[in-house]
Amino acid sequence: MTRTIVQPASTEVAIGFDEPFVVVGERINPSGRAALTRAMLTGDFTLVQAEALAQVAAGARILDVNACVTGLDEAILLVDLIKQLQTITDAPLCIDSSCEIALQKGAEAYKGKALINSVTGTEQSMSIVLPLVAKHGAAVIALAFDEGGISHDPEMRFAVAEKILHRAFDYGIPKADVLIDPLVLPAADDSANMRDLFSLIGRLRRELRVNTICGASNASFGLPNRNTLNAAFLPMLMGAGMTSAIANPLQREVALSVQAGDALLALDASCVNWTSHFG
Amino acid sequence: MTRTIVQPASTEVAIGFDEPFVVVGERINPSGRAALTRAMLTGDFTLVQAEALAQVAAGARILDVNACVTGLDEAILLVDLIKQLQTITDAPLCIDSSCEIALQKGAEAYKGKALINSVTGTEQSMSIVLPLVAKHGAAVIALAFDEGGISHDPEMRFAVAEKILHRAFDYGIPKADVLIDPLVLPAADDSANMRDLFSLIGRLRRELRVNTICGASNASFGLPNRNTLNAAFLPMLMGAGMTSAIANPLQREVALSVQAGDALLALDASCVNWTSHFG
Repeated sequence: MTRTIVQPASTEVAIGFDEPFVVVGERINPSGRAALTRAMLTGDFTLVQAEALAQVAAGARILDVNACVTGLDEAILLVDLIKQLQTITDAPLCIDSSCEIALQKGAEAYKGKALINSVTGTEQSMSIVLPLVAKHGAAVIALAFDEGGISHDPEMRFAVAEKILHRAFDYGIPKADVLIDPLVLPAADDSANMRDLFSLIGRLRRELRVNTICGASNASFGLPNRNTLNAAFLPMLMGAGMTSAIANPLQREVALSVQAGDALLALDASCVNWTSHFG
Repeated sequence: MTRTIVQPASTEVAIGFDEPFVVVGERINPSGRAALTRAMLTGDFTLVQAEALAQVAAGARILDVNACVTGLDEAILLVDLIKQLQTITDAPLCIDSSCEIALQKGAEAYKGKALINSVTGTEQSMSIVLPLVAKHGAAVIALAFDEGGISHDPEMRFAVAEKILHRAFDYGIPKADVLIDPLVLPAADDSANMRDLFSLIGRLRRELRVNTICGASNASFGLPNRNTLNAAFLPMLMGAGMTSAIANPLQREVALSVQAGDALLALDASCVNWTSHFG
């Protein structure tokens, strides 16, 4: 396989209301992926590297990195992955773990300004992750749930988002460094109410003026033909005002729908990128 | 060519907040289509019939019929098309003309409850088209512009929509029979502001409680790879709360994105249709 090697460099990815929608590539995550799990267990980074380069080529601006493999020390593996990835791509990484110690080790190993994935609204999470984010001058994804679990009431999720933002502010973390994840439930789950989700995204944007992110592929969980569902869901999120998403750019429909969304929403100024790709 | 013939019958298509999104097939329209224009000029209905059946097979629930061909009497041709189409499909027709006399003749020829396309907010249009709609018990598409032209201010478009609704009410036309078209401008036109459009759709839904429709393909006008843009735009419209659109279901991406939108928005209850198609 011909592999293009890019040295790490000072690269800047901006997420914002008037910026092109940012796709965070979701593929470096062993969850539910036997081959990737096996590769991580045997210390073979070939597949991880291939996934990284392919996602960047397909339009991922940031790469999520998750190292939760049963039987391995997550912190050690995460640090290994970060170091490896930073030798082959200058795309910023999103350090993804539900284990605070892994987030800490990952943040220490990372060169540059990382995106920490994630903090929640629980006291335990905020008290450990937010100081870490502040110490490293990182950005962080804040999941809109707390000790009460995932509320089906959008008002409650909004309140949790506000709580995390206030606490982050107490730690000196600016609003621009907190990406709120309003939580996407599977459409196949009858309790998912996408219209409530879109309203919540709109309120987070208008009232809190924060950037937003989500795990977009969750929407299609459990349904067939997920690529097509994901490709329809992303424009909905973009139209509702979301600024970024963790998604799979290797699904060609997904990458195209995000490009199309940028063109339609004037995030691709005068549709220059669209026209240069397809004109 | 194998042609399946369906006799006209009592068929009902419901457009509504909790109904699957309704695609009105846009293809029976000679504008910009040389072969169709030629067929209409020579009185050959083969192509029209093929377009009708193909659109219904691809998911169109209603068929737009436009007969504006230079050199032909639009009213006579429109009546001919309506009569022909009603012998081969029981899909309701959307009688499309900017000429009031053609709308009148078309409404008279149509068997069943038609959708009249369109009335505008000008005094001339309202005073002629609304009585026609009332007389035939039809539904009507109301374009949100008036003597002042197409406003770039969404407040103005909202006000025009309200004006037409009030006038329709004076003629005894119920709100359910007025579909508001908030007007889609091409994304390539710098004055198109899709976020304003989505807000307007939301206000029409929440505040006026009206159903909405638009010419969805307008968004991609003048840009390459229109199918992909259209397929991304429709979910945005659906997410914003639009209930129907005039579109091209023969673009497979478009038909799929509408089906996906229904599944994601719980308009396809428990995703039964989606799962039966793709599971």
